[in-house]
Amino acid sequence: MLEKVDLSKKLSKEEYKQKMPQLEARLGRLQRECKALEIPVMIVFEGFGAAGKGLQIGRLIQSMDPRGFEVYPIKNETEEERMHPFMWRFWTKTPARGRIAIYDGSWYRRVLIDRFEKRTKENEMPMAFHSINSFEQQLSEDGSLIIKLFLDIDKKEQKKRFDKLEKNKETAWRVSQGDRERNARYEEYADMMEEMLFATDTDYAPWTIIEATDKRFAELKIYTTVIKAMADQVEKVRGLALEAEEKKTIAGETDVVAEIARQTGNEMKDLQVSILSKADLTLSCTREEYKEKLDRLQKKIEKLHGELYRRRIPVVLGFEGWDAGGKGGAIKRLTAKMDPRGYRVNPTASPNDIEKAHHYLWRFWRAIPKDGHIAIFDRTWYGRVMVERIEGFCTEEEWKRAYREINDMEKDLYDAGAVVIKFWMHIDRDEQERRFKERQENPEKQWKITDEDWRNREKWDLYEEAVNEMLMRTSTDYAPWVVVEGNDKYYARIKVLKTVVDAIEKRIKEK
Amino acid sequence: MLEKVDLSKKLSKEEYKQKMPQLEARLGRLQRECKALEIPVMIVFEGFGAAGKGLQIGRLIQSMDPRGFEVYPIKNETEEERMHPFMWRFWTKTPARGRIAIYDGSWYRRVLIDRFEKRTKENEMPMAFHSINSFEQQLSEDGSLIIKLFLDIDKKEQKKRFDKLEKNKETAWRVSQGDRERNARYEEYADMMEEMLFATDTDYAPWTIIEATDKRFAELKIYTTVIKAMADQVEKVRGLALEAEEKKTIAGETDVVAEIARQTGNEMKDLQVSILSKADLTLSCTREEYKEKLDRLQKKIEKLHGELYRRRIPVVLGFEGWDAGGKGGAIKRLTAKMDPRGYRVNPTASPNDIEKAHHYLWRFWRAIPKDGHIAIFDRTWYGRVMVERIEGFCTEEEWKRAYREINDMEKDLYDAGAVVIKFWMHIDRDEQERRFKERQENPEKQWKITDEDWRNREKWDLYEEAVNEMLMRTSTDYAPWVVVEGNDKYYARIKVLKTVVDAIEKRIKEK
Repeated sequence: MLEKVDLSKKLSKEEYKQKMPQLEARLGRLQRECKALEIPVMIVFEGFGAAGKGLQIGRLIQSMDPRGFEVYPIKNETEEERMHPFMWRFWTKTPARGRIAIYDGSWYRRVLIDRFEKRTKENEMPMAFHSINSFEQQLSEDGSLIIKLFLDIDKKEQKKRFDKLEKNKETAWRVSQGDRERNARYEEYADMMEEMLFATDTDYAPWTIIEATDKRFAELKIYTTVIKAMADQVEKVRGLALEAEEKKTIAGETDVVAEIARQTGNEMKDLQVSILSKADLTLSCTREEYKEKLDRLQKKIEKLHGELYRRRIPVVLGFEGWDAGGKGGAIKRLTAKMDPRGYRVNPTASPNDIEKAHHYLWRFWRAIPKDGHIAIFDRTWYGRVMVERIEGFCTEEEWKRAYREINDMEKDLYDAGAVVIKFWMHIDRDEQERRFKERQENPEKQWKITDEDWRNREKWDLYEEAVNEMLMRTSTDYAPWVVVEGNDKYYARIKVLKTVVDAIEKRIKEK
Repeated sequence: MLEKVDLSKKLSKEEYKQKMPQLEARLGRLQRECKALEIPVMIVFEGFGAAGKGLQIGRLIQSMDPRGFEVYPIKNETEEERMHPFMWRFWTKTPARGRIAIYDGSWYRRVLIDRFEKRTKENEMPMAFHSINSFEQQLSEDGSLIIKLFLDIDKKEQKKRFDKLEKNKETAWRVSQGDRERNARYEEYADMMEEMLFATDTDYAPWTIIEATDKRFAELKIYTTVIKAMADQVEKVRGLALEAEEKKTIAGETDVVAEIARQTGNEMKDLQVSILSKADLTLSCTREEYKEKLDRLQKKIEKLHGELYRRRIPVVLGFEGWDAGGKGGAIKRLTAKMDPRGYRVNPTASPNDIEKAHHYLWRFWRAIPKDGHIAIFDRTWYGRVMVERIEGFCTEEEWKRAYREINDMEKDLYDAGAVVIKFWMHIDRDEQERRFKERQENPEKQWKITDEDWRNREKWDLYEEAVNEMLMRTSTDYAPWVVVEGNDKYYARIKVLKTVVDAIEKRIKEK
């Protein structure tokens, strides 16, 4: 989840001053609502050292009624705590109904700092993750709202902050030997973070990454995240209560909380990790370069295809992207010199009746390639979290748990030896319009464009939001997403081929 | 789950002939109902070799419409299957909505036979369990009913069956070298079975143990289990459909399926694994023996208590049992010579307001002993699956998932180094009545007996059912249940002390 985070995000002082008062008022109101509805709220602050956890907690609680929350700084275990099971100190610090508990550091220590410093042994890791998920699931099922914030800064920024703290006599003590060590081995520690995020990002207690380089931006995103989560939970709990009362109609009344949830949801969009917006769509490549590289890469793939077959390595390539994003063209160039007996392109249309009668992943499982074969999917199982989400073909609950289901499936493929890559063919709105019009005007291409394409185009913003969340939650080291800058078709095709070649060569080397 | 199974269960030919026709009719009807409601049904047969999986499947399908089910024999992987991820062949064999799939052997191979024969490596085990649970959870959340039957026979019976099969030329081929190997190392294989049952007995796909020594009994229990599960699922799906239609009232109409569910539920009780009924309540001990042993054991405990303290081993002892079962007396003898600074008895009453404002396990977590200390619970967290279940203080969903929550908690304690034992103080109804009366007549003991005790006594059958299920689902090797035969108080107290001494000595030796 971390590799695709944009740490350069900023917020101007003016914007900050303009937005915060409203958020502060909302948070105060929601605290009262949660109290009235007896919702226990747990807010977890994790992340890199010096990312500003303490500072941000201080700012968050400024809008809260101090009689309604506790802040728990989670440091090294006390003598008393060391003499109890690890989860004891957290179980005993769970909030009562209607109260808020804020954790500065948390039970994640065990799979982060404790692991880094080898206090948690590697063979204890599966059970540690099991305990954590069991803890969160139990509390969530018992009605607790769990908000998990991960404050992210990069190695350089972290070092800068440590240096600054150390220079000042008053703050020097705050930088420990361990902090320096984790900065020196930042990448290694980040890998542990990444593994932790993967293992514990659940539908009942999802992580939100807070880009923490700019403090104002971080504060705004934390407030927004917390407010949205609380407002949603209030709505949910009320909904259940209403259902129990045989759905009393409260029509007509404007509900303040529903309005807060809606409004904050909109504001949230601007703060989301935007992976797509980072793509540099000016990237391009000349026709000569293209021809030369294409030829070389296609020959390479031809050779590697035989190698894969001999070594029995299966390959799964998924293609998603904007309509007219160039999926078809890329697949065509990719397969041009492949042995047709060794690969298969699976176009994914709306499910037919037999497919509808099964779990949504069933039809993709059926098309999983055997060892040594390549399966290319033109549109994929990610339809669940894009079109099905946006068109309401599945419930919110269903698409929210799909991230984990999909991650699990891809992990199964990887564990069985497969190379798994997903491509997002990315173009901007103008480029799409240009291509749509070209298709309409060219009789040879008219079949490629339908009214539905134009209708989908109107939902660009909704899709962008869904795609960003999808890229964030399902790009893993065993099955990464590759965003292909596609305004220039030549550049895009070469990038796809090159990515596939590199991944196969890497896997062959590993074997 | 296996250690407490009674494999001597039998069914007479007469009873069999009398009961089966009705069950067969019910099953046929439910198959049609499931088809109409588009419920996919998966029935898994697992268990020891020669336990009769094939035979029982043959009998089960006799009552089904052959157009509505498939039977999948899961043997060694074919060449084709070996070239795909392990779960591929199971994903592609999931039933369509409204159909039934029966698996003779299943995805559990991977953690049973394949593990035994070292095709699954030990470091692959956590991921294998993860894949299995993810598979079942996804299908269950998608609406599938998953019924898992575990056919159990003992080592001797298995050997006898193999011998018989081998003697006959026509069937000799059915006994493989692997079968013989698994029989020779029966205990080792049974341990793997036990670990598998623990890791995969979930609220969405629970296991049912089928005592398979007697074929008629096994058949009856399989039919009953399948019918009950299908009837419950039909009722659930209909309920959801009705809710969607704003709860149309169907009052007045007698619902056949509801009647089947109720009736089968009652019949099921006789077939449940009854752990309590196996307890030999005639066990007793003379006063002299008692005094001598008590003295010796108490001295031992005094010594061990110091040893525990020095070695920093925590001990958690839970006491449950029938009212007047002798919990208090046993605890008194147990602690008589302990250093009062090193142990604590926690009486568990109805939760107070603060406790009610938290997760039900919170108050027990707070009382977890520190290293080197002993915590004794007079009534425990098991209230969730006994009194709360029976009195409706929590929902069915809540007590069903409590088995796993409790197992997880006890595993956390064990992993932190604790000795964990749970005692069920067992007496029969007559003995309880005798003790109640004695309490009423003795002015010194009158405080011990209330009207509520008499009321609870009327619910003996409900409790017995709940206790049997609790013992079954939560007796683990790391936190076993010990049923204490309590009609004779002397015998019971000695057994408790002896069990505690043995467990502590064992743990000290391991350290």
